[in-house]
Amino acid sequence: VATRIAPLSGFPEWLPEQRIVEQHVLDTLREVFELHGFASVETRAVEPLEQMLRKGEIDKEVYVLRRLQAGDDAETETDRARQLGLHFDLTVPLARYVLENAGHLEFPFRRYQIQRAWRGERPQEGRFREFTQADIDVIGRDVLPFHHEVEVARVMAEALGRLPLPPVRMQVNSRKLIEGYYRGVGVETREAVAGVMRVVDKLDKVDQAAVLRMLVDEVGLTDEQAKACVALTEVRATADGLAEQVRALGVSHPLLDEGLDELLRVLEGTASLRSDRVEVVADLSVARGLDYYTGTVFETRMAGFEHLGSICSGGRYDALASDGRTTYPGVGISFGVTRTIAPLLSRGLLTASRSTPTCVLVALPAEDDRAAAGDLAAALRLRGVAAEVSPAAQKYGKQIRHAERRGIPFVWFPQDDGSHQVRDIRTGEQVGADPAVWVPPAEDLRPTVTGTATTDC
Amino acid sequence: VATRIAPLSGFPEWLPEQRIVEQHVLDTLREVFELHGFASVETRAVEPLEQMLRKGEIDKEVYVLRRLQAGDDAETETDRARQLGLHFDLTVPLARYVLENAGHLEFPFRRYQIQRAWRGERPQEGRFREFTQADIDVIGRDVLPFHHEVEVARVMAEALGRLPLPPVRMQVNSRKLIEGYYRGVGVETREAVAGVMRVVDKLDKVDQAAVLRMLVDEVGLTDEQAKACVALTEVRATADGLAEQVRALGVSHPLLDEGLDELLRVLEGTASLRSDRVEVVADLSVARGLDYYTGTVFETRMAGFEHLGSICSGGRYDALASDGRTTYPGVGISFGVTRTIAPLLSRGLLTASRSTPTCVLVALPAEDDRAAAGDLAAALRLRGVAAEVSPAAQKYGKQIRHAERRGIPFVWFPQDDGSHQVRDIRTGEQVGADPAVWVPPAEDLRPTVTGTATTDC
Repeated sequence: VATRIAPLSGFPEWLPEQRIVEQHVLDTLREVFELHGFASVETRAVEPLEQMLRKGEIDKEVYVLRRLQAGDDAETETDRARQLGLHFDLTVPLARYVLENAGHLEFPFRRYQIQRAWRGERPQEGRFREFTQADIDVIGRDVLPFHHEVEVARVMAEALGRLPLPPVRMQVNSRKLIEGYYRGVGVETREAVAGVMRVVDKLDKVDQAAVLRMLVDEVGLTDEQAKACVALTEVRATADGLAEQVRALGVSHPLLDEGLDELLRVLEGTASLRSDRVEVVADLSVARGLDYYTGTVFETRMAGFEHLGSICSGGRYDALASDGRTTYPGVGISFGVTRTIAPLLSRGLLTASRSTPTCVLVALPAEDDRAAAGDLAAALRLRGVAAEVSPAAQKYGKQIRHAERRGIPFVWFPQDDGSHQVRDIRTGEQVGADPAVWVPPAEDLRPTVTGTATTDC
Repeated sequence: VATRIAPLSGFPEWLPEQRIVEQHVLDTLREVFELHGFASVETRAVEPLEQMLRKGEIDKEVYVLRRLQAGDDAETETDRARQLGLHFDLTVPLARYVLENAGHLEFPFRRYQIQRAWRGERPQEGRFREFTQADIDVIGRDVLPFHHEVEVARVMAEALGRLPLPPVRMQVNSRKLIEGYYRGVGVETREAVAGVMRVVDKLDKVDQAAVLRMLVDEVGLTDEQAKACVALTEVRATADGLAEQVRALGVSHPLLDEGLDELLRVLEGTASLRSDRVEVVADLSVARGLDYYTGTVFETRMAGFEHLGSICSGGRYDALASDGRTTYPGVGISFGVTRTIAPLLSRGLLTASRSTPTCVLVALPAEDDRAAAGDLAAALRLRGVAAEVSPAAQKYGKQIRHAERRGIPFVWFPQDDGSHQVRDIRTGEQVGADPAVWVPPAEDLRPTVTGTATTDC
């Protein structure tokens, strides 16, 4: 007896057919991550508020929890310090999990985490209040070799390439490269370098002239320096042309060389994954606003859906977590599952072949035949064929239409003489079948998922 | 840089090896549910507060959400009506989902839902503040034939029988049977019948004498009637003895006959699933406190863990949801995943063979060999073998120990002459291997899960 049944803006839900698409996406991600030796972790949905607010800017967006009957008098300062909020990403919980369990983990610790997160943002396309993220990270203890930066790019590019999405472009940059470049053009202090990154990161929202002005007025650069910094953001290249383009800007600094070398290694290490579905390119305009990145940084755009912003981002951070004695560096990438598939589902660009796992509906001649029909369905399930018995012994036409409306491909008919027939209700073809050995064509065993903007999957 | 890294009581988290156990449990449940044609649904984590409080007793336990920056002035009456809380079960969200999407669903609607829920209860063993439930329900429109009550019992019993748990006993009763019986002993009004059920439901907490007293003092029964009602709760039987035991109590009523017949059909319909892991029995003390059950009711106990209470409960409800014109009857069972596995994990009674999906660690003779080792790992992955390259080109002894600590069964050694060897590090046996065809023994391909109180799984 529900009264408010309107959808809640920002809290997407899927119909069964759409959920089958989402399951396909999540299963594919899991399969690729596990094949590469990433172990699953799930963390609790809540973190202490004070923990989450360390990242600064995010505090407006956290959902705080309160027990309904806790009462106002419970709101003392102590309680406030203990307040719990829903996590807004999977990185803060990972940092806490690693510190809490460090003694039980092996490092480098390779984990994936596919879980919901929550932000109290104003909902719009690509921005939800509840959404699913799929993260992979490799966490070291004290040290983390660079090759893991190549590795997480490879793993995520491979995963994205196996999803039924429009083509995606992973844009890679190196914080070392850009910091070295800025220092090479004479930006001296750590603060100024961070300032340049923050301003340059706005380039997809404001125009170049405004960015140049901010670099001069707010960060204190000369016109010359500001122009040089903006020139770097125009570099887009694969492994072939990158070094030439950067050298052509005429800036040199040891850190620039180191970053360029690392960026080339990421591009070369992912070159074999290049396909019509995924490419990995250097894009020196990618800076990532967040302070904690220290090496490779990643963003990802989906063709035709650039307005969503980056659907898959991350990078290297030298201090994911620290307990004072030990520091845990890491590198990770986070794929926004909901952000990516929601617009594709709502436009009908990602569809499942049916709205149920059921492959075979066993028709029922009469209600008295239910037990025998149940045995028959059980025999099919032993071979992995999802089967159910018709809900009612109606006329066969009605039973067939029930299967049809749910996209079930096969209806099974027990015959009076004890033999069996199975009908492909898409073609109407009906043939004799032995329940002890019959299997459907492999492509009909489970629902399949098709991305219209791509080939079948 | 975390400061509060203590675990939160009531919010359990698993180490990677324990999470592999949980994944095995969830995968098995999903597989069985899907083989029976149940479609996955996930709902948002939140529901409007007013919706959730309709069930009455639960209101103390709901977590209410507030956006951190919403401010106190936002707390008007209207806002309160719109307040969101985290769902405390998966039934209230299902009812709302069915009403909201009725036009897009086919009925009877078969759905499973494996998701977290939250309650602000005082944590204790078997009671968590955040926990995972696995529900199956069949929802009809206007009508729902009885056979679905047999079906959900069968499906859940099959699923439980495939989990690596101590033996479980599903206890079934019929609301019709007990209501018919009460009416047969002269309990006349609807209120008195409900009163008897509520009091009888306390039998596992208070003794029989107290229950008899409450039936007389609070519900207004005669001593005779109270004794008769308690006598019914002592009946435990399989299909063989049930009718005789009930008849021996000398009470008769048409509704009692109908309930007895239905209960027998549930027992007969699940008899073939009986094993050393799962049994389904009639237990006429099971009443389920909640008002909305109208037919078959289920509870489940796990051997040696009876103190957890029921780990899997549900039943038939004639009105899961209604929009005024249409009523949606349903039958469902909810398995408490966290409640069940948490005590088994903490006692070491459920273990995984390794803490990572990785089956093969490719050893690294030198850092320069990383690219070649990566190609080798990729070749193994093409055949579904989870493989990763050693994180550092240390001495082989160190690389082997890194594999050992994570339970990885095989280490792969590229040889100087271009040949390959693979070592089972559990036995030390090392043999030549061709990377293009080698596969591990089937039982080593993925982590396996063992329940100590049961056979291997």
